[in-house]
Amino acid sequence: MAHIELPEGIPPGIRGLMTYRPETAKPLNELVEVLLRAPHSLSAGERELIATFVSSGNDCKYCQSIHGAIAAVHLGGDEALVAAVKDDYTAAGVSDKMKALLNIAGKVRESGKSVTTEDVENARRQGATDLEIHDTVLIAAVFCLCNRYVDGLATWAPEDPDFYRQRGALVAANGYGASILMK
Amino acid sequence: MAHIELPEGIPPGIRGLMTYRPETAKPLNELVEVLLRAPHSLSAGERELIATFVSSGNDCKYCQSIHGAIAAVHLGGDEALVAAVKDDYTAAGVSDKMKALLNIAGKVRESGKSVTTEDVENARRQGATDLEIHDTVLIAAVFCLCNRYVDGLATWAPEDPDFYRQRGALVAANGYGASILMK
Repeated sequence: MAHIELPEGIPPGIRGLMTYRPETAKPLNELVEVLLRAPHSLSAGERELIATFVSSGNDCKYCQSIHGAIAAVHLGGDEALVAAVKDDYTAAGVSDKMKALLNIAGKVRESGKSVTTEDVENARRQGATDLEIHDTVLIAAVFCLCNRYVDGLATWAPEDPDFYRQRGALVAANGYGASILMK
Repeated sequence: MAHIELPEGIPPGIRGLMTYRPETAKPLNELVEVLLRAPHSLSAGERELIATFVSSGNDCKYCQSIHGAIAAVHLGGDEALVAAVKDDYTAAGVSDKMKALLNIAGKVRESGKSVTTEDVENARRQGATDLEIHDTVLIAAVFCLCNRYVDGLATWAPEDPDFYRQRGALVAANGYGASILMK
């Protein structure tokens, strides 16, 4: 049961909170929309992988499940790749640039101060641009927000993987701006 | 030196990053404006104290200094109260409700999962509403974002307390929406 009283039949995870507090939901959805879906040199699948990886590190069931499902849609249905990144990204079938960015994202998850000049130089050596490094840090930081928001208020998360598959397909198709309007 | 190349003469802390990436700055400023400055049963000073306390716990020099300065402006210039909350809020001159909310904010800083039903029940016993509990969790989560963003990219933070006093007075008067436009 959530720590605050939410209306009956409210959707799970962050969406219940967004229904409760639309004033903060609007800019938060806009931020996530720009970071994860706007045209970018990192694909939507790569950016969702960063979100999923951070949420998994923070042990946030709702966020890692829904963003993992959205990542899989963008990656042509490759759920095994999403699982591999969560399990051990250094051995997963992603580019060396992505591995360097995931390393930075994992450091940000612990603390911004954990990111070293060496981490950033390594990402640059693998071809990462300043914007990709910036956005990796900000995506990781935003999911440190979302994970704490979702779990800090003890929202519920469905167990059924099909829930996340269906919802993930909707979000992948329609985006975050529309997401709180969709059942 | 920041981990990414920022234009010369760029402002310190998060403002340099916001100048670099206005697309993400806009919704992030809107989110902070709603949470910290919109009409609320918690005063602007109380909400800035929560932001300052979390940023201090995360050891983010820029965020704790600027939000501490803004909090002090809203609290009638009481810098000693801001320092006391950072040092040991349980002994500081804030209400029992604020102490219960700061306890929740500190838990969120560690992990959303650290917040217990007992923490929330205690806040309610001290008169906290669901909206105050919700917003405390979200403010704490947002500053876990901001602290990681600022330190994860190694932005610079001035040493001079007067820098923060002057800037804090501007933000307290004009808000976050306008903040990236101001030198």
